[in-house]
Amino acid sequence: MSSESNQDASGVNHDLSPRQHDQPPSRWQDSEATFLSPNLANRGIDICTLYNSNFQDNEAYHNDKYQQSSNTLGFFNLGISENKLCNDLVAHRLCQSGMSYVEDIQLQYSSPRGHPFLRDAVARFLTTFCRAPQCLSLENVVVLNGCSAIFSALAMVLCDPGDCFLVPTPFFSGFIFGAKLCANVELMPIHLETEITDEDTLPFQLTVGKLEQALLEAKTQCKKVKGLLLPNPQNATGHVYSQESLKEFLEFAKRNDLHVVVDEVYMLSVFDDSVQFHSVLSLERLPDPQKTYVIWSISKDFGLGLGALYTPNEDVAFAVSPFSYLHSISGIVQYHLRCLLRDRDWIDRIYLPAVHSRLRTAHAYVITTLRELEVVHNFKIFFHSRSCGLYLWINLKNLLEPCTFEEELVLYRRFLDHKLILSRGQSYLLKEPGWFRLCFAENHQQLTGEKEAAGLIRAPRPLARTTLPAPGTRGGASRGAARP
Amino acid sequence: MSSESNQDASGVNHDLSPRQHDQPPSRWQDSEATFLSPNLANRGIDICTLYNSNFQDNEAYHNDKYQQSSNTLGFFNLGISENKLCNDLVAHRLCQSGMSYVEDIQLQYSSPRGHPFLRDAVARFLTTFCRAPQCLSLENVVVLNGCSAIFSALAMVLCDPGDCFLVPTPFFSGFIFGAKLCANVELMPIHLETEITDEDTLPFQLTVGKLEQALLEAKTQCKKVKGLLLPNPQNATGHVYSQESLKEFLEFAKRNDLHVVVDEVYMLSVFDDSVQFHSVLSLERLPDPQKTYVIWSISKDFGLGLGALYTPNEDVAFAVSPFSYLHSISGIVQYHLRCLLRDRDWIDRIYLPAVHSRLRTAHAYVITTLRELEVVHNFKIFFHSRSCGLYLWINLKNLLEPCTFEEELVLYRRFLDHKLILSRGQSYLLKEPGWFRLCFAENHQQLTGEKEAAGLIRAPRPLARTTLPAPGTRGGASRGAARP
Repeated sequence: MSSESNQDASGVNHDLSPRQHDQPPSRWQDSEATFLSPNLANRGIDICTLYNSNFQDNEAYHNDKYQQSSNTLGFFNLGISENKLCNDLVAHRLCQSGMSYVEDIQLQYSSPRGHPFLRDAVARFLTTFCRAPQCLSLENVVVLNGCSAIFSALAMVLCDPGDCFLVPTPFFSGFIFGAKLCANVELMPIHLETEITDEDTLPFQLTVGKLEQALLEAKTQCKKVKGLLLPNPQNATGHVYSQESLKEFLEFAKRNDLHVVVDEVYMLSVFDDSVQFHSVLSLERLPDPQKTYVIWSISKDFGLGLGALYTPNEDVAFAVSPFSYLHSISGIVQYHLRCLLRDRDWIDRIYLPAVHSRLRTAHAYVITTLRELEVVHNFKIFFHSRSCGLYLWINLKNLLEPCTFEEELVLYRRFLDHKLILSRGQSYLLKEPGWFRLCFAENHQQLTGEKEAAGLIRAPRPLARTTLPAPGTRGGASRGAARP
Repeated sequence: MSSESNQDASGVNHDLSPRQHDQPPSRWQDSEATFLSPNLANRGIDICTLYNSNFQDNEAYHNDKYQQSSNTLGFFNLGISENKLCNDLVAHRLCQSGMSYVEDIQLQYSSPRGHPFLRDAVARFLTTFCRAPQCLSLENVVVLNGCSAIFSALAMVLCDPGDCFLVPTPFFSGFIFGAKLCANVELMPIHLETEITDEDTLPFQLTVGKLEQALLEAKTQCKKVKGLLLPNPQNATGHVYSQESLKEFLEFAKRNDLHVVVDEVYMLSVFDDSVQFHSVLSLERLPDPQKTYVIWSISKDFGLGLGALYTPNEDVAFAVSPFSYLHSISGIVQYHLRCLLRDRDWIDRIYLPAVHSRLRTAHAYVITTLRELEVVHNFKIFFHSRSCGLYLWINLKNLLEPCTFEEELVLYRRFLDHKLILSRGQSYLLKEPGWFRLCFAENHQQLTGEKEAAGLIRAPRPLARTTLPAPGTRGGASRGAARP
């Protein structure tokens, strides 16, 4: 696991009911009582409990990975939002001349904000790919070893213990580890609905009305709301905000004196040409620049750890810098990153076209396979996909009897019995049971396989164990759920 | 700055009196009031205040470094404990064949404990260099991006907010950032004396009696003491514990049910062949293995970020693993580290002999220069050096009038006026004003220079500004202070 891993992370589900005997070994599988180690403080137990309830299968996966040559019975992990489709291109580029250059400065402690050569490359890269109206300055860039580290540091300096941030939900709940457990900052969900309410809305749609309502509810609970965490593209639904919506959200934040942390980690993962991404940095005017922070990572694109903060607010950039003490990046990697980010020819001509093309192919393959599964099982699999990001959501609530989060967990474990890891909706604080996130930016080998053991082909088994309802006997996903 | 940077970090000194006009620019130099940004929470202001009071000159240094070719009037930084003497050898080794190999796994999220290939290399390396009686297992190793990250994670899981650890003082107070500000764990100093008290003691000597006394005092103050942080070699005095002392300290911890975090970051920096280092992992029997944790980093040796935890306690290893989420190391660097650590021939024949030889040379140069300064100024410079580590301590209390921490700061700033950064004793929670830490593991260019602008040659100017007392008119360092 690393900075951006987001398989099943939340602070909500602590259900740890005993597994069956055929389940993979997990140190903490038996019950929460196992955590009552005399050596851990209560906080340590809380950390283990959160980790166990959300990342419990991560170690099992790492100890028993599927390998085409040596371990065809190992785990498939479609639960981690990681783009493995272009590792070959990055590996090839990293082996080219110039990359192995090492000088003293790479082996020495860098400036707390990161080496200027990398911050300059980040500022230039963001200027171009965010379509900033003016050149962004390296002085406003701080780099740490991942976006989770950046958000955790921001939470530390913008909030006092007990303060909270609003966040549209479902969301990448890995942020909870850094925010809640480390910084003691609460993430208050703004629940987005999968069911549409009128003709003009989409599933999971965020509106200013919902923001206003969430803020009011928080105040009713006497919460001190300090800010809004706004991922765009929305993580974990893949929704891309229109420029108009973006402005409205920023104006809402300004009206209410809230910080806005805009998480643009997935900005390069929009693989559908008909979808237009608008970075907050592309706006001619930010409503409240001193309270606006853009966080970006290249881990979803290049597979190297980097989280970058861009903010016009010098106070906050200064306050976040000392965290490099805990979240530093090796100078060698900083140099690699600089070389990659500055190689515009390679990025424009080779890398990004390949990323988008391969994402489209993998996405189409998964859609096709889901349809085939429908046919084989005579069972409709509703799904939600926005042609952006590395994953889609499938709705299997028709398989839950009753339709509860307990049954969602049972189904999750049934996949796990067949060594297929998906992410559960509950881990993303989804209010409606039955949703599973499936990451398709996976080596084609794992998705397709040459043997029946592989990838999605494993899915039918858990499905087959269930008494399937007749198609359409319970409502599926909302009307607006995108179909290919 | 990065994981192990330890220039002047403490939570004690918040004295920020205004600088003179000829002082280097610093964003926060005017007063603490500057921190009262409306955008930062109180915690953010605390973080800035700590950072400013202890790392305030770090950014100035990074923006205006001495460069032999281009900036001969830039800053010299002898305040950071960083071994720059062998960067050339590491850079050369990193450019050799095999190092530029990149495979998929290096670009993907690793196991939360780190890639097994690196943990295996760390276990084997520590088995050899710590002289472990049995082979250490990779299962007991967790790697994060620095020792500060490891200690911060340990503090989080072993302590609840408000709990405390005892730590022999002066100490590497950089730990305060992760412990106090991030984990809300107090580091309670066990003050070691520079003056010797009887024939059998040395300056800065730790004894069981002092441990008992510190524990009693903490309990009197109703503190909940959870553990003992025990750096060996002692950071920041360079003291190496005898095996007998080490056992006594561990027995003390066991009697009092305390965790012991043994920080062996400097174990390879013992450059005097007559000094024998004993790792806690060399002991045949640990008094309380379930409460013993060894942390080690190679940043002092190889200049690459890695903090490793070795502990027989599986609960704690499990609890620390999720922190990889915030403190990960790039897979590429994990691979580089593996290659370096496993190249025993290079380490044994080339690297470590060079490290020790160059440390001896630099140490001898600094000692000689200090003697020359004494002669030129007719002023005795007492110092403390243990032939271990990357620095020594000089005592300039004879220059302070009165002998207070305020005057220590004035002298520190006078060095700074001449763009020479040293570390102040107060930053290490030393009780006695006048001590300065001087890191000699610096490029020879900076220490010696070809022009009078360079390195230590700058020191006489601040000294000359002071009305020097007649030699020996006030007591210098204690009798036991080592001399070459």
